[in-house]
Parts: sequence; structure tokens; C-alpha cells
Amino acid sequence: MVNWNNLDTLASYEELKQAKRVNLVEAMSGESGAERVKKYSVPMAEGLVYNYAAKQVDDGILADLVKLAEEAQLAEKFEVLYNGEMVNTGEKRLVLHHMTRGQLGEPVEADGVDKRTFYTTQQQKIAEFANKVHAGEITNAAGEKFTTVVQIGIGGSDLGPRAIYLALENWAKKHDTLKMEAKFISNVDPDDAAAVLNSIDVAHSIFVLVSKSGTTLETLTNESFVKDALKNAGLDASKHMIAVTSETSPLAKSADYLAAFFMDDYIGGRYSSSSAVGGAVLSLAFGPEVFAAFLDGMAEEDKLCKNKNVLENPSMLDALIGVYERNVLGYLCTAVLPYSQALSRFPAHLQQLDMESNGKSVNRFGERVSYETGPVIFGEPGTNGQHSFYQLLHQGTSIVPLQFIGYRNNQMETDVVIQGSTSQQKLCANVAAQIVAFACGKEDENRNKNFEGGRPSSIIIGDQVNPRTVGALLAHFENKVMFQGFVWNVNSFDQEGVQLGKLLAKRVLAHDTDGALKEYSDLLNI
Amino acid sequence: MVNWNNLDTLASYEELKQAKRVNLVEAMSGESGAERVKKYSVPMAEGLVYNYAAKQVDDGILADLVKLAEEAQLAEKFEVLYNGEMVNTGEKRLVLHHMTRGQLGEPVEADGVDKRTFYTTQQQKIAEFANKVHAGEITNAAGEKFTTVVQIGIGGSDLGPRAIYLALENWAKKHDTLKMEAKFISNVDPDDAAAVLNSIDVAHSIFVLVSKSGTTLETLTNESFVKDALKNAGLDASKHMIAVTSETSPLAKSADYLAAFFMDDYIGGRYSSSSAVGGAVLSLAFGPEVFAAFLDGMAEEDKLCKNKNVLENPSMLDALIGVYERNVLGYLCTAVLPYSQALSRFPAHLQQLDMESNGKSVNRFGERVSYETGPVIFGEPGTNGQHSFYQLLHQGTSIVPLQFIGYRNNQMETDVVIQGSTSQQKLCANVAAQIVAFACGKEDENRNKNFEGGRPSSIIIGDQVNPRTVGALLAHFENKVMFQGFVWNVNSFDQEGVQLGKLLAKRVLAHDTDGALKEYSDLLNI
Repeated sequence: MVNWNNLDTLASYEELKQAKRVNLVEAMSGESGAERVKKYSVPMAEGLVYNYAAKQVDDGILADLVKLAEEAQLAEKFEVLYNGEMVNTGEKRLVLHHMTRGQLGEPVEADGVDKRTFYTTQQQKIAEFANKVHAGEITNAAGEKFTTVVQIGIGGSDLGPRAIYLALENWAKKHDTLKMEAKFISNVDPDDAAAVLNSIDVAHSIFVLVSKSGTTLETLTNESFVKDALKNAGLDASKHMIAVTSETSPLAKSADYLAAFFMDDYIGGRYSSSSAVGGAVLSLAFGPEVFAAFLDGMAEEDKLCKNKNVLENPSMLDALIGVYERNVLGYLCTAVLPYSQALSRFPAHLQQLDMESNGKSVNRFGERVSYETGPVIFGEPGTNGQHSFYQLLHQGTSIVPLQFIGYRNNQMETDVVIQGSTSQQKLCANVAAQIVAFACGKEDENRNKNFEGGRPSSIIIGDQVNPRTVGALLAHFENKVMFQGFVWNVNSFDQEGVQLGKLLAKRVLAHDTDGALKEYSDLLNI
Repeated sequence: MVNWNNLDTLASYEELKQAKRVNLVEAMSGESGAERVKKYSVPMAEGLVYNYAAKQVDDGILADLVKLAEEAQLAEKFEVLYNGEMVNTGEKRLVLHHMTRGQLGEPVEADGVDKRTFYTTQQQKIAEFANKVHAGEITNAAGEKFTTVVQIGIGGSDLGPRAIYLALENWAKKHDTLKMEAKFISNVDPDDAAAVLNSIDVAHSIFVLVSKSGTTLETLTNESFVKDALKNAGLDASKHMIAVTSETSPLAKSADYLAAFFMDDYIGGRYSSSSAVGGAVLSLAFGPEVFAAFLDGMAEEDKLCKNKNVLENPSMLDALIGVYERNVLGYLCTAVLPYSQALSRFPAHLQQLDMESNGKSVNRFGERVSYETGPVIFGEPGTNGQHSFYQLLHQGTSIVPLQFIGYRNNQMETDVVIQGSTSQQKLCANVAAQIVAFACGKEDENRNKNFEGGRPSSIIIGDQVNPRTVGALLAHFENKVMFQGFVWNVNSFDQEGVQLGKLLAKRVLAHDTDGALKEYSDLLNI
């Protein structure tokens, strides 16, 4: 029996608040620091490791976090989720994104079908379609091969697939598996679509329209933009477009599309990279085998999240440390800092994943909670960030916990030796140095050059950014966010906060405004 | 006589803390809201307007902010800065970035030259060089025109120029003034340089190496990468590279470069977009006239910042409201939300500008301050953000002040009408709607659909993203950050917080490590 209780009703939370704080400067200095790095480390899938030595925890606090995990029934809640309980209570929906990449528990039937079969069937249909495009069996009207794939979607239909495409683009070039270049149109700003259309050869482009309902305003508007461009080029739009949508949407059986692949109501946009939303564009870009490897990486990481031993469950542990930082230590933000240019848009995807999931003030029963919930997430790749906002992270008045990500090898296997080290070694040296600089600081008589330290971070380390490790990395964060939602007792799978803005925008466009809204509309000449 | 006092020593700050708070939901509803939008608005340069109706201020709080500005001597401090006082006390340097775009006060002499003349001379040299490149008078060894310019730099040598290039790329295409495509190499990650080099035709590319000292590790490493690529293509690197550096650097008179343009010690990296750092790449990309128009926009905005009437000085007012939010209302973050895809990287530049300038814990005399200083800055373009992290902004447990930016017209002048409105109208309708949604909220019996409101924002509105308005926009934020630094009594022009990480990274590369640093180095195989 699972109990959905608020965090502040749990005895273990009270204990955690009373626990003695860790002095990170002391803990991470000298031999103690070396011991922590060796000890506070847990394997992830695909050779990744989650190291939390530089977090403000010790054995005592970890024991309290284990108690919290047990009292909050995190493992049990995950279990009911993947076994098909209606965990998205707000929208009265199952939560099935894990099932796109594996079967963690019982078969789940919904809408009259086995859902694992539904997802794999869509993957197979996409794979067959992509293979035919790559083989030149599906071509443009002139019988020429398509060379470019353009995703039209916004939010979860954009950020995740785009981040993953960028993460793997150079890897795919190196491994000779970049089948088509991918581009993305998302913003309703007409210059977004116009710029992408100007940069491609539309006659050899295939467009993936992604909209669950078939009614997302930005996406439909951009579809029109694209159709105009195709028409202006003398092309038949229906031979250049496919749809990713729900089976019940108006797009599902329309003659306007070469093919339609299906998503369902049990996967929210921000969790949809592993569904047809990511599957179509990534299979077309890289080939279905690469997308399958990405899913395998996710599946392997998902399996680790079933482990009831918190200290062997990296997502659960990461989630609990985050709760400690947010609710006991009082930190609002977390910075995500991948030391890999390939992951340049990964922080933007995690920003959506985390902030849209847990940026809530009411619990799953619609009651206002009286504790803090989801953090603000931001980040940029290192070393670039070091020359930008790290100043505040090191010497600002507020502490921002940090999530580093680093890899031993680069993707392109080209490098250069300067001053006795490769660029990749310099990149790795910098991330190692930053962790210690943030944790330990350095005293200086000149207070302007003084570093107080005590700034917590964790790092995920892997061999290389590739399809399997990107899958594992993404699943880690999806599951971390899910476990945090369980602790905070919020529904991490709806997003009612996006509705009011949509409603008011419609009123502006209908000129049905008064007061401040009318004044702003006038200022903007609407 | 200017007095550099801590914020918490000022009587007006105590008054501000005692002032009655504004109920934003009430203030922004009905006729009162309409009045505020009309009243709380101040013109900026180039037709922009700064509207702060949806901030938590009223006439009483504004009066207190005016007193604070006077007691903190903001206008006087700006005056001594542009008249050449050594305001960057930590590094014992003048602060002269305003002089790259105009002469606000007295002539300033340093290093034996008139500084305004120094900057305009560099601009002229760059303009002549760029014009010769565009005219085909300076070519590659085969006598062919250069088509691409690649900036090699990091931090301030990257973020500002890149954000401005992206802001104006489509505008320039539309106005037939895109002379060369620009690319940027910044990260020490070898895949960054490799990917850019793979995407260009090196034989027709000119590289701009930007390093003040000529010793920035990332930049020198990437230069080697580029030189290798040129050599491998059978090209003479010295015919493809120019340098932007200080007159005393080893790069200044090297035969390795076609030309060298100079920067000096009086402009920090994050304030250097208007110096040769931005000038070379932007003049080559767009033509010198476009860069000159950008500088004119900055100069016009700078002039407004001299106004001692706070309520007519948009940067000063914005700065003061920000201090009220940070120090009295206790908000840590600010989100920058441009409703323009062209400004996609503008938030990343402001992130550096703001966080590196004011992310400090000591005052300008090296004493620890006992109040909060610079905020955390993050942001993405709208409407994309609406489908991502806005959920937390609307319904999360913490309040994040918002800086919207919106334009009446798009850049490409192509648009499409769907459901009775253009995409541009939809874009504008959304930003208007969001301001009101955040400020006023909306009650709902279903607490999950309830919006508490009371979430403050301001908006900068303009006609279009073009060289002059981008200049004005950037100068606004540069000056806002400067005024906030004055209020907090910090030195906004040094960055000692970046040093410790550099030092430790060198130790890692020299294998001179122990304790935690050695363990992390081992984990990363360095």
C-alpha cells in the first residue's frame, strides 16, 4: 500500500533537518577528501559513474536520506508507476515513458492494447520508414533522395530531440552514420521558420510535424509556413511531411502526410524523447540502430532505478541529495555544467524536464504545500561557463549547487598537444580543478582573492558522449526528477501552469481585452 | 566628492526596507493596471521603451529609490567613471568601454594617448581592412575572396560578439549586407574546433584570434587546432589569421597574422563587444557601417544614463528596482525572456555580463559585505520558454522576477496568417498575455489550476531587432549592471573568482596533485 504524504509530515524529514551539517571545506581537504572521492561514488549504466563526494553529505546524513526514501516509499511509488497505476492524477493518466525503452514490471494494457507492444510497433514502423528513406525507396517527387529532416515542434517536441541530435551529430559523422542533417523549427516568431527554410534545400527535405493534439498553435503556424515554402518551390507538401501525433488527432489519417506515427496520452512532452517524438527525427537523422542504442542506454539506467538500496540507486540518491539542498540547506538553483560541447543544449532540456515537472505549489491532491519544491535549473557547457558566470558561483553571496558532467574521451578523435597536454586533457583537468576549487576554496589575505569554498557539486563521469551513454544520462535525470516529485508529493507529470498565458493570448488576438492587457496590446501594436 | 559606501550604511536603504509593499495582483488589475502601464514607462534610445508597470513598485517606493540613487551618488559615480577615474580599483584600471562609442565627458588620456582617439583609430583600421576583404583586395593566396570569418575566443571574446551576430544575421541577409558568414570557436573541448572546421571551407576563411594577453589557454589551443587544419589543407596560416590583442602582447607584431587590431586594459572582456573584440568579427560579417550603427545605438543609450532624474534614466531605474527585488524582497534569480528568436543567445551574454560583474562578496575595499549582491541570470527566447520552464515561474514556490523583451515587427518580413492573425501578432500577444498572467494570476477552486500571481516583470519594447536597437539594448544592460555595482559598492570590473580554478587546472596538468584533486584526476584519466 502506497501512501502519498507531504514531505513535512514525515518523521525522517524532521530528523534530516536536525542532522549535523557537513563542513565541506574540511571534509574535502587532505586525505579525508581523497577518501570521500573513492567512497561516495555509485555506478550508473553504460560505464557512467555518479560521484557525490563534493556534496554536503556524510554517512550520518546519508543514513537519514535512506530513512527518508523508505518513509516516502520511493521504490514502491516507482513500482506502482511502471506497473501502470494512474500516477498522473491531475490529468487522470498513466505514466508510461519508461515503457518506450523496456518492460520494468507487469504488462500494462490501456486503450485496449498492450502498451509495450504499442511503443515497439511505432518504433518498428519508424525504423522501416527511415530505412526506406535512407535507401532511396521513399524519395521526393523527382525520385531524388531526401538529405535533410526538419522537426516542427515546441517544448518537449523540440528541446529533448534537439539536445540529443546535437549530442550525437559529430559522433555520427565520425562513425559514418549521419544519414540526414536535422534542423528544428519551434518558435512562433516567424523569423525562426524563415531562417531554417532559408538554410536548407526544401526540395530534398522531409518535415516531421509533432503535435499530440494536432492543435498546438506554434506548431500549426509553422507547418503553414513550411507548406507555403514548399508550394512556392513548386512542390507537393504532402510528399514532404510526416506527422507524429495521437491516433485520435485530425493529423492521424490525413492525406496531407506521407506517414503518421503515434504517441499517446501517457507520456508528457518533456518525457517524450524516447517515444515517436524523438524516434522519428533521430531515426531519420542517425538511422534506427542508433536510436535503438540510445533507448538501450535509457533502459539500462531505468533498471538501476528499481534498486531499493538507495546507495546503489544513482537517480534516487541524486534526488534525495537535491531535496536536502533545496529544503534543508535552502538553495534555490542548480547549475548543470557539461564539460562537452556536444551537450550544449542538454541543460536547456533538463531545465524543461525539471522545472516543468516539479515547479508546483500544490500536492497531488491539490493542496498548497508549505515547503519548497522544484529548483531553478540553468547551465552552459564548460569550459565556456568558467569564463562567464562561474565568478558568481565561486564568490557570489548565494550558494548554487552544481552538477558537473565529464568524459574521458572526445567524440571526433582529433586533438592537438599544446604545452604538453591535449585539449581533452585540459578539458578534464578543468572540471577536476573546479570541483575542488568550489568545495575547498582557498584563503587569501586579500579578501578579493579569497575563496570561501563550501560550494557543493556532484559529477557524472563517462568515457564518451555516444548513443548509449546519452540514453543513460537522460534516463538518470528523468528518474531523478520523478523521485523528487515523489518526495515533494507533487504531480510531476502535468503542467497546468502553462494554461493561463495561452488563454490570455487568445483574448489578445480576439481583441477581447481591457485594463493592463489592453494597454500592453496597444504598446505592441496588436 | 564621491563616497563609496556600503548599501547597508545608507539611511535611504533603511527607509526602503520599511516601505509598504505593493500588492501586485491588486495594482495590476482593472483600471489601476491600465493606468500603471501608461504611467510606469520611460523612453530608451532608438525608439525602445522600458515599461515597469508590472514591477512591485508604486510612487512611494519609487520615491525611496530616488533617494537611494541620490544617497548612493549613482549619477556622480557614473560621471567619475566616464571622466577617467580609476574605478576598477582591484586591478587599478580605468573603465572606458563607453568611450568606444562616444565621448560622454572629458577627454581621457592613458598610456600617453587620448583614449577616444585610440578606439576610433582601431575602428577605422578595422573598417579599412574589412572593406578591402569585401572588395577582394585582401584575398587568400589563390587570389580568391574570403567568404567566412571565424572568431576564436572565449568568455567576453565569444558570448557578446556571438549574441550580436545571431541577433543581426537575418536582418543583414534581408538588407543585403551579410558580407561573410561568421562562426565561433570557444571551448577547449577539441570537438568544438573540429566541428566548426568541418563545417567551413578553410581555404576561404579568415580567422580572428582574440586574446588580450596572448596567453588565454583555450584560445591558444584552438589557434593551434586551426593552424593545423590550414596546414593540412596546404595553406599558409599567416594569410588566414588576424589578431585582436593588446599592443604589448606577443601577438601584436607577429608575422603570423595578416593584421593586428588593438584592445587595452580599460575594457573587461564582458564589456568588449563595442571594442575591437566585437568590431573585427562584426565588421567583417556585416560591413563597418552596420557595426557603426550598432555603436551609435549604444552611444544614444549611454547618453540617457547621464540623466540625474532617476525616473527618466531607464538603466538607473532598472538597476534600482533590481536592488529592491534582490535585497528587500529577497529574490535570487532574474529570467531574461526575449520574444525574438534572433536574441536566442542574448540571455547567455547577459548572464556573463551580470553574474561576472556583480557576483561578488566583498566591497571595493576588499571587505566582506553583509547583504546580497548580483543575481543569477538565465533565460531562453519566448514563446519557447512558455513550453518549458514557465511552469515553475507561474506556479513554483519561489518567485523569479522576469525581464521580457518584445518587438512589434519581425526581421525577415515574411509571415503567415493562421486563424486570423500573423505569427508576429501571436508572438506579441503571448508576451502581453504573460505579463498580465504573471502579475494578476487567476483564482480557481481547483488549486492545481490556480495562479497566485504577484510575479513581477518589466518589458522593453521596440520596433525591430536591428543594429541600432541591439546597441541600445546592450548598453542598457551594461549600464544597469554598472549602477547596481555602485549600489552594492562592489567592483563590477574585475573577476578574481575565475583564478583559483585556472591555478588548480594547471596543477592537474602538471600532475602536481594530492587528496581529492588527485582522485578526480585519476577518475578522468588525466
